[in-house]
Amino acid sequence: MNFWDQMVDEVEVKEVGTRDGFQMETEFIPTQQKIDLINKLSRTGLKAIQVTSAVHPKAVPQLQDAEEVMANIDRQPGVSYSVLVPNLRGAERAVEMKADSWELMQSVTESHSRSNANHSVDETLRGLEPVIKLAHQHGVEVRGGMAVSLGCPFEGQVPFERVLYVAEAYYSMGVRNLCIADTVGVASPRLVYETCSKLIARFPDVHFDLHVHNTRDMALANILAALQAGIRSFDSAIGGLGGCLYAPDATGNVSTEDLIHMLHLMGIKTGVDFDAIMAITPEVERIVNHRLESAVYKAGPSSRLYPAPTKQIKKVQ
Amino acid sequence: MNFWDQMVDEVEVKEVGTRDGFQMETEFIPTQQKIDLINKLSRTGLKAIQVTSAVHPKAVPQLQDAEEVMANIDRQPGVSYSVLVPNLRGAERAVEMKADSWELMQSVTESHSRSNANHSVDETLRGLEPVIKLAHQHGVEVRGGMAVSLGCPFEGQVPFERVLYVAEAYYSMGVRNLCIADTVGVASPRLVYETCSKLIARFPDVHFDLHVHNTRDMALANILAALQAGIRSFDSAIGGLGGCLYAPDATGNVSTEDLIHMLHLMGIKTGVDFDAIMAITPEVERIVNHRLESAVYKAGPSSRLYPAPTKQIKKVQ
Repeated sequence: MNFWDQMVDEVEVKEVGTRDGFQMETEFIPTQQKIDLINKLSRTGLKAIQVTSAVHPKAVPQLQDAEEVMANIDRQPGVSYSVLVPNLRGAERAVEMKADSWELMQSVTESHSRSNANHSVDETLRGLEPVIKLAHQHGVEVRGGMAVSLGCPFEGQVPFERVLYVAEAYYSMGVRNLCIADTVGVASPRLVYETCSKLIARFPDVHFDLHVHNTRDMALANILAALQAGIRSFDSAIGGLGGCLYAPDATGNVSTEDLIHMLHLMGIKTGVDFDAIMAITPEVERIVNHRLESAVYKAGPSSRLYPAPTKQIKKVQ
Repeated sequence: MNFWDQMVDEVEVKEVGTRDGFQMETEFIPTQQKIDLINKLSRTGLKAIQVTSAVHPKAVPQLQDAEEVMANIDRQPGVSYSVLVPNLRGAERAVEMKADSWELMQSVTESHSRSNANHSVDETLRGLEPVIKLAHQHGVEVRGGMAVSLGCPFEGQVPFERVLYVAEAYYSMGVRNLCIADTVGVASPRLVYETCSKLIARFPDVHFDLHVHNTRDMALANILAALQAGIRSFDSAIGGLGGCLYAPDATGNVSTEDLIHMLHLMGIKTGVDFDAIMAITPEVERIVNHRLESAVYKAGPSSRLYPAPTKQIKKVQ
């Protein structure tokens, strides 16, 4: 069956700007601004918002107000509010916060695991076991993130076996939602297609998400490739918030505006009100106090029309 | 046959930065700098370079030195040096310049034709007839550009029949190389796939190129879709030079660096030396005196590795 002949009908977009985006912001964003933003995002049709992180406040000072944010947002029915949970201490906090879903994060390479979690892959996986048990006890959904699945800033290309190893570990612990993450934005569409296809074939009862960064401008091409492989939900960040620790000048997560814009143009539903998102972006720009990189935010949507000039203007191709 | 199971082996990249890119630069670029840049680009493995335009100097003052540039570049064997030819007067100049190939430009919508050429579609097509005859007399290759084939800034969505009308007109005048242009960067991958597929099916003996702008960040996704439709040659501009008349803050042509980077990562050959292109980009930035938007130029290629930190750093997904 040709992808183009039978277009995907609908996909899910998960907003990660206030977590993966904000944690890259050096200046502290007042808690009330975070709450207001999440409340606005909650009313755009988004069904999943990664709100904050239960990481140690000293590790990510920007998200030290996780409890206050989670306690004061105005929760909309039908919207899942998730929190990143790095360890058992974080899990206990996430229980108190009444997060609908926990985002776990496991690097698939040793060097990234040591850099990010200060432990080997096996050590970190062992640490996630009681976390997952606790989630199941509380009936909370768990998403198993697989960082650097598509390339590692220290090791380069990642053998598929490393991804498989982590996916199997999650699976054996009962996790049925996994997130394939191109953490530093290095993947090509071909690698995305092949990795996603193989994982979907291997774990037919797992729901896979894709998390891509636009570091090398391939985010939307990678999402297209993932759609062709069968992926149906994608992380994105409003305005393209976020960034890359290793390339300070680079762009961040794929932008929610650009993603929804492309999907809608292709006739793929997201349930998200594009205009409502675009109305929020200028506020995000004021909050973070720097220009945002969303192309559609800067150029306007493809549907924007201009009055035809009455006299000849500069030649263009 | 699944695109992903039998990957494309090789594609051609045509550099258009010194024409489509430079014409958007308001400050005049000294002629010798243009010549030096084209000479450097000629030695990277690029097989086709759109050098300049034989447009009236008053219409595009930036390219008023077309003759001088074409007379003084150091032509490499195997490289095709093309010139944009807007009309018969331009064609006569292009003969004198000994351009290897002429780029014609025909808007497919009435309002864009009037805005760009000050004439209706039929009037402009009639004007191209003696141009094409002259090209054939001189044994010069002709590429028939079809501007706003994938969306018009004044009319919005363009019925396929409009594109077909112009393609048939070119074909009946003997042109066998057509360029499908997303002039203002509005196309989705779906539209690109459908338009390219239909044109290739209709004109099996025509060689089609795709010209995309990255205005809404879909350039690489659109190129992926075009590859799947059977397109095998693509325009791009070093550094992502160029822009959009209607969205001053928007990005320009798809960047040569980003395009080659993605293709090579996917195992698709271009014959172009990626490192050689990346070595030229900083010079282009000095020439135009503003930041360039190529993502790979800013972030470095996916193959760039970083030393693993010895202690834990900030959490990332």
